[in-house]
Amino acid sequence: MVRIALIGAGRIARVHAQSVAQLPGCCLAGVYDPDPQQGTRFAREFSTALFPSLEDLWADPDVDAVAVCSPLFAHRDHVVGAARAGKHIFCEKPIALTLDQADEMIAAAREAGVVFMVGHVVRFMVEYVRIQEWAAQGVLGDLRSAYAARFSGLSAGSWRGWMLEPGRGLGVLDAHIHDLDYLQWLLGPARRVRAAGWRFPTGTWAHTTSWVEFAGGSVAVAEGSFAVPQGFPFTMYLRVIGSEGAAVFAFEGPDYATPSRKTLSLYRQGHPPQTVDTTPINPYLEEMRAFLQCIRTGTWPDRGHPDDARAALALTLAVQQALETGEAIEPRPSS
Amino acid sequence: MVRIALIGAGRIARVHAQSVAQLPGCCLAGVYDPDPQQGTRFAREFSTALFPSLEDLWADPDVDAVAVCSPLFAHRDHVVGAARAGKHIFCEKPIALTLDQADEMIAAAREAGVVFMVGHVVRFMVEYVRIQEWAAQGVLGDLRSAYAARFSGLSAGSWRGWMLEPGRGLGVLDAHIHDLDYLQWLLGPARRVRAAGWRFPTGTWAHTTSWVEFAGGSVAVAEGSFAVPQGFPFTMYLRVIGSEGAAVFAFEGPDYATPSRKTLSLYRQGHPPQTVDTTPINPYLEEMRAFLQCIRTGTWPDRGHPDDARAALALTLAVQQALETGEAIEPRPSS
Repeated sequence: MVRIALIGAGRIARVHAQSVAQLPGCCLAGVYDPDPQQGTRFAREFSTALFPSLEDLWADPDVDAVAVCSPLFAHRDHVVGAARAGKHIFCEKPIALTLDQADEMIAAAREAGVVFMVGHVVRFMVEYVRIQEWAAQGVLGDLRSAYAARFSGLSAGSWRGWMLEPGRGLGVLDAHIHDLDYLQWLLGPARRVRAAGWRFPTGTWAHTTSWVEFAGGSVAVAEGSFAVPQGFPFTMYLRVIGSEGAAVFAFEGPDYATPSRKTLSLYRQGHPPQTVDTTPINPYLEEMRAFLQCIRTGTWPDRGHPDDARAALALTLAVQQALETGEAIEPRPSS
Repeated sequence: MVRIALIGAGRIARVHAQSVAQLPGCCLAGVYDPDPQQGTRFAREFSTALFPSLEDLWADPDVDAVAVCSPLFAHRDHVVGAARAGKHIFCEKPIALTLDQADEMIAAAREAGVVFMVGHVVRFMVEYVRIQEWAAQGVLGDLRSAYAARFSGLSAGSWRGWMLEPGRGLGVLDAHIHDLDYLQWLLGPARRVRAAGWRFPTGTWAHTTSWVEFAGGSVAVAEGSFAVPQGFPFTMYLRVIGSEGAAVFAFEGPDYATPSRKTLSLYRQGHPPQTVDTTPINPYLEEMRAFLQCIRTGTWPDRGHPDDARAALALTLAVQQALETGEAIEPRPSS
């Protein structure tokens, strides 16, 4: 039985608590939140313990693993603290605010010999997985072009407050990283990026159109927005064109679990077009299942590997720099 | 009664012959095609005269106007010839293969005092018109970002043969120019473009992803492909995001007249989302109606003005050069 404590009692902690409750072989070991009211409410809702401090959590031998669900600016402290306490770590994406933080976190987890996984949940969404499989199996031929989009308005929830503050969050890049990570999974390492967009009054970016050149020669455009008007549906879109085929995923709806429109299509030379039925699978459940499997086998994950998460952050920060400078930026390679 | 002769008896000539047949105040004055068999078949089908040569057509005082429906490489000769013969001119898009040709054609028509219009039919498609109106009326606020796409596989028809031959056609840029023209209508003059794509074995471009920077500061991405696999639906897509609203047009279907999916949506701050019903209007009929109106009033058109068509060609050739060089290219301004 893997006993998992949650750090942070916000929106995404609730999602992971539900996964832990549903999965065999694990249970909730408690929750910590710097806001005692929020922590108490959460602990009561999920019938779990409330840790009065992180030190209590680190010291508890009945905690095997943590799910870091705190705001981005706190990831480093929480992951490094958990590693030093010998806990396995699932951490929300983006891995960190800076590459130095990410490197420090990865080193701490390696040194402690604990499992470390970053919750790049798009790698567990069945439609994105299917397209990656088609690509990897050669069904699409040589991949030549991709377009990915992710649009949502700002929710009224206060949980996004930190996300828009420079030095604490990444604005829309917090969502855009999903597509940048996925595109590197699909097309290999990016070598250069350009971007254009506009900012929130706080200074973080509200919208980006990113032009990504890959080491393999292909080019992708990714667009991300937190600045679409009221009523604009949450939108995910991916189109990949290869020499032998093309795949399109189009999604609109309030959230991934409740599409108002969802299609996954495969087009291949010499075959009739194929609309692929995808049974809805909860990708958060699947990523938590993968984390548990990693703990059992003592390995780091295939999907959500911290090195990939670090590469996604490097590309995301390159986009940010491209937005700020108007120049073409190369992502900082890992040291 | 405006008597209109067709130059070229191919696919698009058929479309314009049908418009002429439907519109009041005009009639077909005959057809010319260098292939006598094709010309004869066409003349019989539309119960009109067959001109044995262009000289016969130019010399016929019963021809008031021509619709130039010949392949791109022949536009210059046909437009300049018609102008010198004093005929009003409707010419298919793109206006010409080169800017020098376009300038020569415009000068010839001006000198002859005839009406000259270029068939940029997207400016007559009601959904594109609606979005342009919203933008012009300020409904969307300051325009910040646009994405336009146009995808079709190569039809089996031999009519596209010349289109793929360097020096005779522009490959996919023959379709991509629709979006480049529209984006300049919407966002003003482009100042710089980058592009990536791949070629047909013939050497013309099969696919382009174009990054267009506008003098006003906004950036648009436009994608065009003749290289999508078999079965991929003919696709038109336009999304415009402004400070106060966003508009999305999504179209799939065998052709514009027979959508399998079509939505036009308007999202505005402080308003519920609006799905706009667009009665299907034949845009080819509307552009021919506008041409007739120009002849009646002796003016050049608002939509399909040769100067705009020339600017669209300048941007298209800049995209071509960007594809070839990998560099950022500024469209050549009009002299």
